[in-house]
Formats: sequence, C-alpha cells, structure tokens
Amino acid sequence: MALTGNAIIGQSGGPTIVINASLVGAIQAAWDLDEIEHFYGALHGMDGVLKEDLCDLFREDPDLVEEMRFVPSAGLGTCRLKPTDEDLERAMEVFKAHNVRYFFYTGGDDSQLCCHKVSELAKSSDWDMNIVGIPKTIDNNLVVTDCCPGFGSAARYAAICCQYVGRDAEAFGTLEVVEVMGRHEGWLTGATAAARPEPDAPPHLVYLPEVEVTRQQLIDDVQRVYDEHGYAVVAASEGFAFAGEEQATTSDKVDEFGHSRLGGVAQWLSDVIEEGVGVRSRHDKLGNLQRCFAATASQVDLDQAYAVGKAAVEWAVEGQTDIMVTIEREKDEPYEWECGATSLMSVAGESKAVPREWINEEGNDITEEFVTYCKPLLVGRACELETGFTSFPRFHKYTIGSKLEPYERD
Amino acid sequence: MALTGNAIIGQSGGPTIVINASLVGAIQAAWDLDEIEHFYGALHGMDGVLKEDLCDLFREDPDLVEEMRFVPSAGLGTCRLKPTDEDLERAMEVFKAHNVRYFFYTGGDDSQLCCHKVSELAKSSDWDMNIVGIPKTIDNNLVVTDCCPGFGSAARYAAICCQYVGRDAEAFGTLEVVEVMGRHEGWLTGATAAARPEPDAPPHLVYLPEVEVTRQQLIDDVQRVYDEHGYAVVAASEGFAFAGEEQATTSDKVDEFGHSRLGGVAQWLSDVIEEGVGVRSRHDKLGNLQRCFAATASQVDLDQAYAVGKAAVEWAVEGQTDIMVTIEREKDEPYEWECGATSLMSVAGESKAVPREWINEEGNDITEEFVTYCKPLLVGRACELETGFTSFPRFHKYTIGSKLEPYERD
Repeated sequence: MALTGNAIIGQSGGPTIVINASLVGAIQAAWDLDEIEHFYGALHGMDGVLKEDLCDLFREDPDLVEEMRFVPSAGLGTCRLKPTDEDLERAMEVFKAHNVRYFFYTGGDDSQLCCHKVSELAKSSDWDMNIVGIPKTIDNNLVVTDCCPGFGSAARYAAICCQYVGRDAEAFGTLEVVEVMGRHEGWLTGATAAARPEPDAPPHLVYLPEVEVTRQQLIDDVQRVYDEHGYAVVAASEGFAFAGEEQATTSDKVDEFGHSRLGGVAQWLSDVIEEGVGVRSRHDKLGNLQRCFAATASQVDLDQAYAVGKAAVEWAVEGQTDIMVTIEREKDEPYEWECGATSLMSVAGESKAVPREWINEEGNDITEEFVTYCKPLLVGRACELETGFTSFPRFHKYTIGSKLEPYERD
Repeated sequence: MALTGNAIIGQSGGPTIVINASLVGAIQAAWDLDEIEHFYGALHGMDGVLKEDLCDLFREDPDLVEEMRFVPSAGLGTCRLKPTDEDLERAMEVFKAHNVRYFFYTGGDDSQLCCHKVSELAKSSDWDMNIVGIPKTIDNNLVVTDCCPGFGSAARYAAICCQYVGRDAEAFGTLEVVEVMGRHEGWLTGATAAARPEPDAPPHLVYLPEVEVTRQQLIDDVQRVYDEHGYAVVAASEGFAFAGEEQATTSDKVDEFGHSRLGGVAQWLSDVIEEGVGVRSRHDKLGNLQRCFAATASQVDLDQAYAVGKAAVEWAVEGQTDIMVTIEREKDEPYEWECGATSLMSVAGESKAVPREWINEEGNDITEEFVTYCKPLLVGRACELETGFTSFPRFHKYTIGSKLEPYERD
C-alpha cells in the first residue's frame, strides 16, 4: 500500500565499511519521494527508536550526505538489541506518535528478525506501515541473498593482510596464523584464499568452521607446507574448533544478542603448530579493523550497499512491506548483479554456511567454486591497493657456489 | 680507504614496509661503482653470511629491482642472530673467501652491534674492509639519527587504524584499547596521537612505557573521556606496565636476540577498564601488520629508506667505515632532511626513549613537541589514504523533540 507520512531508518549490529553507503542510498532516494514527509535516523538503531533518539536526515547538508557514503562504521550509531514484547509495543507507540509509516533497518539475521517482529506487530496493531530490511554483515551469512554488503570490503582487507603477513613470515622462515572474523561461518576466511594472486601465495591453508579437522591433521598440513615453502601461513575462522573438542578460546562473556564473544583462535593454533612442527610461529588477529578499514574498500561492495539502501526506500514507497532487499547474481564473469527482494520471514534468524562442496575434501582449502563466487566481490577502488592483489615481485636469487665446507652453528 | 672487491649486504631483525627500499638504494648506487665488482645479498642476514647463502644482486633484472623498492618485508630474508665469537670468526672466513671488501647490514640496535663487532674483527684480522650500518626499525629507537626508516610507515598504519576503530567504538558507544608495537619505547604509540585530525579524535589517551601510571589513573582517565564523548579509545604500547607492577602479559618465551616476546596488553587493559568503568570494552592488537601493511606506506619513509641505502654504498666506497648512516633533520616545517653518519659504536646496543617532556604531565597524551617531530614522518603516498587523516565528516544530528515520556528498559 502506498502511504504518506514519516520514515525511520536505523543501523544495527556490527558496523561495516559500507553501511553508511546504504544509509546514503536511502536518504538520496527519499529526497525525491513526496510520500516521505520526514526521514528520521534512529540513533543507535532500535535503542534510538525506543528512546526516541531520532534525527532529521532531510536537514543534513546534501554534500555532507554524499561524503558520508565513503565513511566507515555506522554514522547513526548502532546497537545489538534483541527486542522484548514490551520493546516492540514501545516501538509501535513511537511509530504512531511520529506518524511513522516506513521503517528501514540495516543489519544481519538478528536485525532482520527484529524487523520482522515489528512488521508482525504493525499488522496486528492496525497501523499501516511498510517495513523493509536492508542487508548488512561482514559475515556474509544471510540466506537468499547472493552476498551481503560489508562482506566484500572486509574480505578484501583480510585478504590483503594475509598477503602482507605472508611476506613477513617468509622473510623469517616462520609459521603464521591469521584469525579471521565470521563467527560460525567461513565466508571471510575462505575469501582470503580466493584472492591468492598465484597458487603458492598465502594463505597456504584455510580452516573454516564448516569442516572439522583434527590436531594431527593441522600439524601435518603445516609441516607439509613448511617443508615445501620454508614458511607457512594459516588463516583460521574465529569460530574454528578441532574435531571432537570444544573451542578452547570461547570467552564466557556474551554480547547483547546472546552470542558468545569469540576470539583467540590464532594464538591458540599458533601454539599448537609451534609445538607440533617445532618451528617458531606468530599470530595476528585481524579484529575490528575488518569492519572499518575503509582505505581498502571494495568498489562493488560500496555500489551494492548503496543500491540496497536506495531500493529499500523506493520499494517501500511503491507499497512493498515485510521484505528484505537482496543481491541477485546475474553472471559470474564479468560480474553482473541486480537488487531483488525476499520475505523477512525467509531470512530472519537464519544463517548460511559455506557449501561443503566449496571446501576441498581435506578441509584445508577452498575449491574453484568458492573462488568464482568470491573474486568479483573483492574488486577494489581504482587508486588503491592493487599492491595487495598483484603478485609481488621477488628477487630471482641467483645463488653462487660455496667455497667452504658447510658450517653448523653450535 | 678505497678498496676494490666484492660487497655483501644483509637484512636483519623485524622486516619493515620500506626495508627493501634501502636495499634497492644500495644496489642502484653500486651499479655505477667500479670498486664493487660483485654485490652479494646474504639470505637471512648474518645467518646467510655464516652459511654462505649469498646471491648475486647485479644479475637481477633492473626493472625488477626498481619494483622491489615498494615491496614490503625483507626481500632477502631476515634473521635475529646474535653472533658468537665463533660466528664472527666464521664471517671473516667467508669475507676472505669471497674477497668481500664491503659489508652493509640493515637493522636496529642489535644489528648495528653485530655490524660493529664485524668491523672490530676485520681491523684486528688485518683484512681491509669498509663496513656501514643501514638504520631500520619501526620502533624508532636508534640513537643519534633523527628517525629510523620503517617507523613512518608503521606509524601511519597504526594511526589510521586508531581513526578507524575509533569510529567503530563510537558507533557502539564502547571503550576500545589498541595495542601498538615499539617494545619498551613509546614512539609508535605516541605517533597514533600525533596524527589526530582534530583535538577530540581518537586515540583519546595514549600510554607510553616511558611514563608509569596506576590502575586507578587509567580507569579515571577512561571514565572522564567516556563521560565527555560517549566512547573512548586508548592506545597502549606493548611494553606498557602499571606503576609498581610487573607487566601481566609478558610471555615466558624469548626471541633469538634474547628479548621477551611481548603482546597481550590490549586484552589485559581492556578487561581492566571494562570492569573499572563498567562499559563494554573491545581491543585490537595491531600486530605484525604494522611492519608490512604497505598500502599505507609513508612517502617520506620510503624516500629516507632509499637514501640511507644509497649513501651507505657511496660512502663506503669513498673510504668510510665503522659508521651507520643517519637521518639529520634540517627543518620541521616544511620538513627538510639529509643523510648523515655516526660511528657504529655510538649506536650499537643503545636505544632512545621518548623524551619525558614530549609526554604530558599526566602521562596520558603527547605534547606539541612530539607532534611537531612526528607529523612530517607520516606524510603519505599521493593516491592513498587521505581518508585516514582528513577529519571524517559526521551527520550534524539535528535532534527532534520527544513526544512521549522517557522509557526505561527492564
């Protein structure tokens, strides 16, 4: 139903490098639409709705809005709020008080669930509202959609980091474990391998939570790579656990969605392989920079984030509701995509694992299908960072013959 | 003394983003000099000298050499080797066997000490050799020289990271601790504050190992910033310890130079402030990426690294020996510098702390003197990363009046 009134947009969950691009897409679409009289930003997402911490987005300077498109992290503030029934009732009160006829919420599966609950309550409250979810998560684990805005840029950063620390490990001839975000799905971790500029480039081994391996396999895998290359780089998901074992590193603390705080896998695996292989190992946890290191943003990711925000507003005004905007892949090479839509119910609280057949049999690398899927999502900004993906040159190292007996250090 | 014969160059200690620029400067200088008949690269530094793992650098493709200038991490491989007397004797044997009349070693204070010992032994062995150290360390702690190649690029990356994770913490309204390298000197940590694009920008608090603070001060400092800004970002050195306490996180493992492996400060301080302030805190350890994330390299740093490599070769051939090349600052603004020289003995095994007067009285921020010193060293590459240093725009957030009673969540 086409409605006239006010709109609220909120940002939820972990920020990304491109979440503001979605917001800007929504604002710029709304400018031209008579049905949206005022466009309010909820400060810190649903928390802002509940507290009526709202701001008037139409008063923002248009040049500033355009600039915000390339600013990382949630420009309106974010939250991890799992609304209770009372919260939802409160939200409806706020919507009614402000004549809110459109609600847009940018987030992952928990946030889409929140959005769906608002939608259900609006229906049962006889308050005409069109509600559209905007996808966002670096974890790339939303179902139905081909990919999630935020993923491409996070993956690009993680992949570049693996190339760089690979060079560091190679210079020392050591082992290295890189810890990648993604919770219990291995999309981001797999992506670091999808960007390898040559077959022997790091990461040599990737371990996704979708496939369990044993301690002995990990050690044997690393030993083999070390024997071949003189160094080895492993990328492992923060949600990684050995077959038949609890994850040794899960904190006893939980976030506001009730999920346990993950982290520490790199240090733990680094200790395991240092002892098992008998070679010094280092570790790097890529951490929060994966969702904010904007200098290495993916252009495709920025474009998609903008497009889903724009489509959300346009389609809501056309009368669609209780949907999430999706990305539909038209073609792998050259990559073609367009926006689509799915019911909020189909995505709310669901998560998509990496298909088993996109991971090799041994569970230590990805297959060509993953590469084909992933590569176009990492395409970068013109002026930046080709250094991260081109194959770094190396000295040929023309060795000269020894003139003395081999030397053994004591 | 001007000598004719062969030369060896090696890379030592932690790699940097620009250490290959020094190597390329040395190679390109040596091409034109008749005194250097063959220029050998020692693979993995002194370890390669001892094992005669040498390569012929003059056979490298000149275009490839030029490309290597912008490749991070030690292209010849590196090591942390503290030579014994026996090692030194062996090195002399290798030099004699290969008619090596020039030795160049790129590294920090431990590596310059190694270089000096080689120099002493050459003198006492009646083997005419000119030996020149090339400065390199992201820690910026070599004495005499104005700064150390490698520092500017590492500092630039660390500073950009603080800006980005600051936005992430701000979006959630949380606390954040960033762990910065630099061992027992606070140059890198201080540099993250030198790059603040505006006075209120993160990091709001920086703790350098040069000044001790108490637990209570840390908590009070963070509380004050949080009360003022609604979030707080702390940058702390990996070598940080509270006044009167052992560092809680020092590993019992040591590196090959005998230094303990540092790391874990961010997580530790994050726990301290989360409990003390009662607000969720996150943490990021910047890790090895500080010495290899080339995409954010500083142009001045690249230029200086190239220049010290070139000067080392030219001056050795002119007859200088037992020296390290230095950077001499001519002017702060606009920044002007040139290469100088100092005796190896003056720098070997010495380290330079941040002057007390460059840190504020409270020990939680740097002073203008530090900013003046540091800022020109972080100047970046033209096409990249102004996003990291320009002041990010923000929505003005024109709040609208509430229409309901305040709401308290249960």
